[in-house]
Amino acid sequence: MGVNSNRVNDFSSHGTTTEAVMPQTTEIHRVCLPPHKTTLQKLKQKLGDIFFPDDPLHRFKNQTSFVQKLLLGLQFFLPIFQWGPEYSLRFFKSDIISGITIASLAIPQGISYAKLANLPPIVGLYSSFVPPLVYSILGSSRHLAVGPVSIASLVMGSMLSEAVKPNEEPILYLKLAFTATFFAGLFQASLGILRLGFIIDFLSKATLVGFTAGAAIIVSLQQLKGLLGIVHFTSKMEFVPVIAAVLNHRNEWSWQTILMGFSFLAFLLTTRHISMKKPKFFWVSAAAPLTSVIISTIIIFCLRSKVHKISVIGYLPKGLNPPSVNMLYFSGHHLALAIKTGLVSGILALTEGIAVGRTFAALKNYQVDGNKEMISIGLMNIAGSCSSCYVATGSFSRSAVNFNSGAQTAISNIIMAATVLVTLLFLMPLFHYTPNVILAAIILTAVIGLIDYEAAYKLWKVDKLDFLACLSSFLGVLFVSVPLGLAIAVGVSVFKILLHVTRPNTLLMGNIPGTQIYQSLNRYTEALKIPSFLILAIESPIYFANSTYLQERILRWIREEEDWIKTNNENSLKCVILDITAVTAIDTTGIDLVCELRKMLEKRSIQLVLANPVASVMEKLHQSKTLESFGSKGIYLTVGEAITDISASWKAEP
Amino acid sequence: MGVNSNRVNDFSSHGTTTEAVMPQTTEIHRVCLPPHKTTLQKLKQKLGDIFFPDDPLHRFKNQTSFVQKLLLGLQFFLPIFQWGPEYSLRFFKSDIISGITIASLAIPQGISYAKLANLPPIVGLYSSFVPPLVYSILGSSRHLAVGPVSIASLVMGSMLSEAVKPNEEPILYLKLAFTATFFAGLFQASLGILRLGFIIDFLSKATLVGFTAGAAIIVSLQQLKGLLGIVHFTSKMEFVPVIAAVLNHRNEWSWQTILMGFSFLAFLLTTRHISMKKPKFFWVSAAAPLTSVIISTIIIFCLRSKVHKISVIGYLPKGLNPPSVNMLYFSGHHLALAIKTGLVSGILALTEGIAVGRTFAALKNYQVDGNKEMISIGLMNIAGSCSSCYVATGSFSRSAVNFNSGAQTAISNIIMAATVLVTLLFLMPLFHYTPNVILAAIILTAVIGLIDYEAAYKLWKVDKLDFLACLSSFLGVLFVSVPLGLAIAVGVSVFKILLHVTRPNTLLMGNIPGTQIYQSLNRYTEALKIPSFLILAIESPIYFANSTYLQERILRWIREEEDWIKTNNENSLKCVILDITAVTAIDTTGIDLVCELRKMLEKRSIQLVLANPVASVMEKLHQSKTLESFGSKGIYLTVGEAITDISASWKAEP
Repeated sequence: MGVNSNRVNDFSSHGTTTEAVMPQTTEIHRVCLPPHKTTLQKLKQKLGDIFFPDDPLHRFKNQTSFVQKLLLGLQFFLPIFQWGPEYSLRFFKSDIISGITIASLAIPQGISYAKLANLPPIVGLYSSFVPPLVYSILGSSRHLAVGPVSIASLVMGSMLSEAVKPNEEPILYLKLAFTATFFAGLFQASLGILRLGFIIDFLSKATLVGFTAGAAIIVSLQQLKGLLGIVHFTSKMEFVPVIAAVLNHRNEWSWQTILMGFSFLAFLLTTRHISMKKPKFFWVSAAAPLTSVIISTIIIFCLRSKVHKISVIGYLPKGLNPPSVNMLYFSGHHLALAIKTGLVSGILALTEGIAVGRTFAALKNYQVDGNKEMISIGLMNIAGSCSSCYVATGSFSRSAVNFNSGAQTAISNIIMAATVLVTLLFLMPLFHYTPNVILAAIILTAVIGLIDYEAAYKLWKVDKLDFLACLSSFLGVLFVSVPLGLAIAVGVSVFKILLHVTRPNTLLMGNIPGTQIYQSLNRYTEALKIPSFLILAIESPIYFANSTYLQERILRWIREEEDWIKTNNENSLKCVILDITAVTAIDTTGIDLVCELRKMLEKRSIQLVLANPVASVMEKLHQSKTLESFGSKGIYLTVGEAITDISASWKAEP
Repeated sequence: MGVNSNRVNDFSSHGTTTEAVMPQTTEIHRVCLPPHKTTLQKLKQKLGDIFFPDDPLHRFKNQTSFVQKLLLGLQFFLPIFQWGPEYSLRFFKSDIISGITIASLAIPQGISYAKLANLPPIVGLYSSFVPPLVYSILGSSRHLAVGPVSIASLVMGSMLSEAVKPNEEPILYLKLAFTATFFAGLFQASLGILRLGFIIDFLSKATLVGFTAGAAIIVSLQQLKGLLGIVHFTSKMEFVPVIAAVLNHRNEWSWQTILMGFSFLAFLLTTRHISMKKPKFFWVSAAAPLTSVIISTIIIFCLRSKVHKISVIGYLPKGLNPPSVNMLYFSGHHLALAIKTGLVSGILALTEGIAVGRTFAALKNYQVDGNKEMISIGLMNIAGSCSSCYVATGSFSRSAVNFNSGAQTAISNIIMAATVLVTLLFLMPLFHYTPNVILAAIILTAVIGLIDYEAAYKLWKVDKLDFLACLSSFLGVLFVSVPLGLAIAVGVSVFKILLHVTRPNTLLMGNIPGTQIYQSLNRYTEALKIPSFLILAIESPIYFANSTYLQERILRWIREEEDWIKTNNENSLKCVILDITAVTAIDTTGIDLVCELRKMLEKRSIQLVLANPVASVMEKLHQSKTLESFGSKGIYLTVGEAITDISASWKAEP
């Protein structure tokens, strides 16, 4: 027991220490109960804390004029009224440039991601048109570039195609995709309206790093089909069947496709590398996808009689988004699947959208309101599901380009939508000869950047359990399935919280000479034990889940202390002080523990004292009448005051 | 903002306050990192804390002699060696009396509970013979009376009879019951061997109060069959179908049965009432069941030609437990059900056994080792499953009688087993004419005592969320199903922990004049604000699940403070101190929060300072290099030292 060497062994020096410790505070402070509140008031405050932590109505508080209130209300619900009045031509110029830049990225990515979700390529373009328009009016982020994204597309594709084969029943598949989008939007908007935004907080950063990396690898593997020119591929998403399908169809590999694919892949990766090294040249990688599409389409068009082996997109219908309300699907036995897909892809889309929005808002020092963002993203997806769009959200890669190319407001989304509109109306036939292999290369380049091994390494260094959550979501997605991988990761994260609560730290404390500070003996070598006292700090709420453990652990501290006293011939233990500053909550089982411990120690003539209970603990002790059984000499405001007062009472009655 | 009135408004008096506050401690203490440990050492300590919190080998530490160690080891594994040498004739007399008393209770209860589990009555007696023998050798509680109990019997009966009708396939049903018992024992023993005993801690007291009350009502309703003399009854367990069955079979109600049943029920309840009022007369209620059985059997025997309507137990085979190893069932499609039933009834039996053991151990001031108890209970059930017994554990009612009648050691269990043995060998024919209605009355009396409405009321008063957990397990069991009710209750309990973590308290702190104590301004009216400082205490670990909330909440505190400063023309806010004493853990997301907050406040020329980080938080801050970015003026040991040092540095550079 190295820590015991800190103890003041000599009794006379002990006397000195004690006096040196607390000469100033002869006054003992009463421990107050918190101000009395009725159950209803408490409930109101609790609900306020849970649902309105940001006090969303604070803007309206000191306003008396009705017009002012109305204007603030409009600004609250439609952020366009907030920045609209200050909008200038200079802003507009910036927005036009960034809008066109992200459109040049959104068009090839939209087509590619739709293919990832097993949907017709045109749906990807539709989804880059309606949702950005809705978002630009409602959304509070100024830099979010809205449209389909890889993760949500992948999840939707993998979940729906398990039940319905997209090439066998294309209409049913499309119906399910729109229905899932509708439910995703409904779910997102409800989370925002019910102010349950904290649910997405349960996807910790560690989980997301692992999940994204796993999903990125799955997406990359899927691209092997396009990249190698394989015709017959598995519809499964997991690692093993995909690799098996690639190897089993070696006879279908086409060297022309491979050559073209890898050349453009090299080109795209090089441009990406340049932009990463020199952020000034962000436009190099931003322009690369569209350039690749144009060049490859021209090549294929010129060689169209010679390269039959390279598959192309083919015919795409011209025209605006057709309405799809009639395709929503509210009965029948696939409904449960559509709802489940909507929930999973909705929550992932939301997480990405809000994280991206917050990232860029922090860079420009403005606030993004999580709950309002959820409503905007939800409404834009509901609108999307009625106009032939599938799940859209803020894309990380396009938002970064948007930010770097100087976007000022959500107008850049409107410019992008207008560019997509022109494409939809006039330019669709140009994509007829675009080779599928280029789309594969574009997706690959985009998702490779999502594998954040540096973040994973940092997790390993800082927090092993966080790394475990990350690893399990990675492996779960890669080898089991996307929703299950996610569930495992959330489970690990929650388990981590529970583990911390189930096995809380208890510390042996000592006094830092010359002060009223009590700190861990193990950590502060200058800290000294006070003879006849055992000071323990409990570092967790006391709950049913840890009360048995805590009882055992506290009794063990006492046993070890008494053993040490016996071998060292010290003053016998007379008082145990529990510093419960960090016990931020207690439940009925916890109160039973405290009472039982007090009784057990009383039988052994040891006094139990509590120091610094927080308001809620004090209140529970009072309500359960435990406070009365402790009496006035049982609860102190600080450890120091407890020691002063108890030592004094011992001296008074020798 | 009532709390703000506490602030020292006058600047000159502020100066005085600050000086009055910290004249003694001019020295600023360095915040230490905990002693360095490798990952392996940390893992070892963490695992030690999780699995061996009680340090089970501490007995062996200072022993050198091999014989001594061997003896201690024997005592450790077979507690009989611990109390055996001290066993005296006086103890033996007490044990004989208590053993016979609990046998007189165990025989009628054993028969009754077996019927509750839809098993032949004789199985209940078998289960009161083998398990107590095994337990008396292995178990560490001296007062536990072992045998079948109502809750586990009910759960087994309800879960198994959903798949297999006990009257249609009695052999298969019996096989499944023994198999479930085997798995229950295996599960219990494994929990003990793997030292995972904390799993049963997740059944909080609140949950158990609700669960037990719900189960008691279900059991009582089941007894209506016997009490009213109904022949055709539902095999369902839930509230609604049982009531429906009672009402639909009104034509089967038999007035003779009802008369007899209610008379004996009145008798039993009266004796129970007497014993509860005067604990001295515990033997009145202890003897009542056997008395009722004897009297009612004699009545029926005398009137046997006249009262055909009253159903009797009928023929019971004489003889010892037959072996049942050959009836264990390790394949086939009911195996999953048997395992599930074993798990649920096993965990419930374990919870009851350990809680009862701990209760009486606390009364006599000795320790019951949870993990060792699990191994004993598990092994006795495995032994039981091989000798025609079903799940047994420590019964609350019989253990109380055992304790009150003066049992000294586990020998009373051996006496009880011997009495049951005599009954099995010679007295079985006497039970032929025992009416089933008496068994129903005995069960009813036993389970009514399990409805602890006082505990529920206390939960309501002390902790509304605990009450909610209690209520949901009550309603879940009553209206949904036994395992689902339990699952819901555990879910609510876990949700409660998560809610506390997701929405932690943040407190505005002030200084108590003349001290170095900083406390909540809201709770301590004498506490004063320090101008230019905002002191916030965070009362929870900082995790992914609450970092967004905390960021919003802290920014809101700052906003409100700045609003207040504006309206009151105060000194502007220059420093925010976060008192993180109660932040007992932090994860990578939490560290990101701290860094981001620091950057955001820096842009607004406000300094962010942390006070009193615990060891693990300090370590994480160090590993993630956040400590470096805070520098030497960013982390202090106490709020007081932070204020002294920062104020001084402001004075130095005006």
